[in-house]
Amino acid sequence: MKHISSRDNPLYKRLMRLARGKREKGADAHAVQHVLLEGVHLCQAWLQHAGAPELALFDLRKLETQAELQSLANRLPAGLCHSCEPGLAAGLSQVEHGQGVYFLATAPTPVLPERIAHNCLWLDRLQDPGNVGTLLRTAAAAGIEHAYLSTACASVWSAKVLRSAQGAHFVMTIHEHVDLMALRRRLAIPLVATALDDAQPLYDAPLPAKCAWVFGNEGQGVDPSLLEQADMRVFIPQVAEVESLNVAVAAGVCLFEQRREHSQEL
Amino acid sequence: MKHISSRDNPLYKRLMRLARGKREKGADAHAVQHVLLEGVHLCQAWLQHAGAPELALFDLRKLETQAELQSLANRLPAGLCHSCEPGLAAGLSQVEHGQGVYFLATAPTPVLPERIAHNCLWLDRLQDPGNVGTLLRTAAAAGIEHAYLSTACASVWSAKVLRSAQGAHFVMTIHEHVDLMALRRRLAIPLVATALDDAQPLYDAPLPAKCAWVFGNEGQGVDPSLLEQADMRVFIPQVAEVESLNVAVAAGVCLFEQRREHSQEL
Repeated sequence: MKHISSRDNPLYKRLMRLARGKREKGADAHAVQHVLLEGVHLCQAWLQHAGAPELALFDLRKLETQAELQSLANRLPAGLCHSCEPGLAAGLSQVEHGQGVYFLATAPTPVLPERIAHNCLWLDRLQDPGNVGTLLRTAAAAGIEHAYLSTACASVWSAKVLRSAQGAHFVMTIHEHVDLMALRRRLAIPLVATALDDAQPLYDAPLPAKCAWVFGNEGQGVDPSLLEQADMRVFIPQVAEVESLNVAVAAGVCLFEQRREHSQEL
Repeated sequence: MKHISSRDNPLYKRLMRLARGKREKGADAHAVQHVLLEGVHLCQAWLQHAGAPELALFDLRKLETQAELQSLANRLPAGLCHSCEPGLAAGLSQVEHGQGVYFLATAPTPVLPERIAHNCLWLDRLQDPGNVGTLLRTAAAAGIEHAYLSTACASVWSAKVLRSAQGAHFVMTIHEHVDLMALRRRLAIPLVATALDDAQPLYDAPLPAKCAWVFGNEGQGVDPSLLEQADMRVFIPQVAEVESLNVAVAAGVCLFEQRREHSQEL
């Protein structure tokens, strides 16, 4: 196993750029996107769902003492495993007590379907990485397998989104940088939006068994021109004098209400 | 208006300790708890619901140029208003672009009721401040006016909890450091817990119109001895192969399902 002992190692510098959330040199929004996965749970999930990564990096001290890391290393082609000094591994970590394992991998780039007839999640300029991750986790738990994210959403494969999504990335097909107005024309099922004006209570009309759910920016909601294209606009009846729900909580209420209404069909 | 121009000012040092989340000297868990509120929205809400704070601190530059801050200052007794240099104000801020206004206030210390017959939220060792804040925001939106938090929950009046709760603090009565096992004996309504084992689907039995909802620690759930005391244990039916819901989203689904079932009574 190759060992990295210096911060000046070019491979380590590349990982550090990714850990800091910087784009790789020369990359544009549509280029191949490299992802740095941290921790046993995420790396195992990647291996199970996507296969071997481009490379794996282990904290040498932890690799020598922890069975979980050894078992992970044993499942990988030896040529792509690297070890490094504990200080270097800690330098890459996004959490206080890192587990000492990182995968460098390539984010999947699924092709947009010509026609959308599957229950799906649309996110319009959701900016908070915690919200984006929690929305994906919630959608996955509700049985939604496809997500379409507009430009100006938090980057799906960033460390914070990966952490809050708790593995949803590996059971969903996620499209980024999508023009949702153009996507509307491919939709063979209703577009349902949450909105405060000109909307009906969530529980008033039956929800479609399959639809595209669109949730909008934390402050501004769904873009007005997209909202105009919605077949159904709903709101969650709540106490009037207080703030409306956090967008991920609102999505949970909507998606599980749909699931409840159609539970006989599952 | 008194002006603060040095970091060594004793009042400024005291605010800085609070901003850093440190307890005041000599304070124990049950002592009077001072709170640092930041931003126009929170300070206005405090003024509206709790009255004047102990003191207010304004960024001098922003106070001179922004009508919102001037109007806030005009509503306060002059003797408790202070101004300070912009750099000092920024040093207290928890956000990237602070609004330049802080209140120092005393957290309310409500007395535990002898008998609990109101719909309420119980939190058992919820550690993440964002989760605690979002849970309070969700409960407030669902019409719940009382919350009881065990020890080892994130501190309710910390900056992060205040930020995620979006004003829920001012429409709810919130008890901290509560012994939930002891509180159980004061309960005149059912105790309902979310659990994975020995639980029924949320939608199977009608939910009580009034109950105490208990939500547990992010990793471990509700404490087993408290869970044993629950009159009803429910789970949210979801896809089997993925992580369960984030606790604040799960609470949203439960509380709004209760609200839906009893909407005729509202």
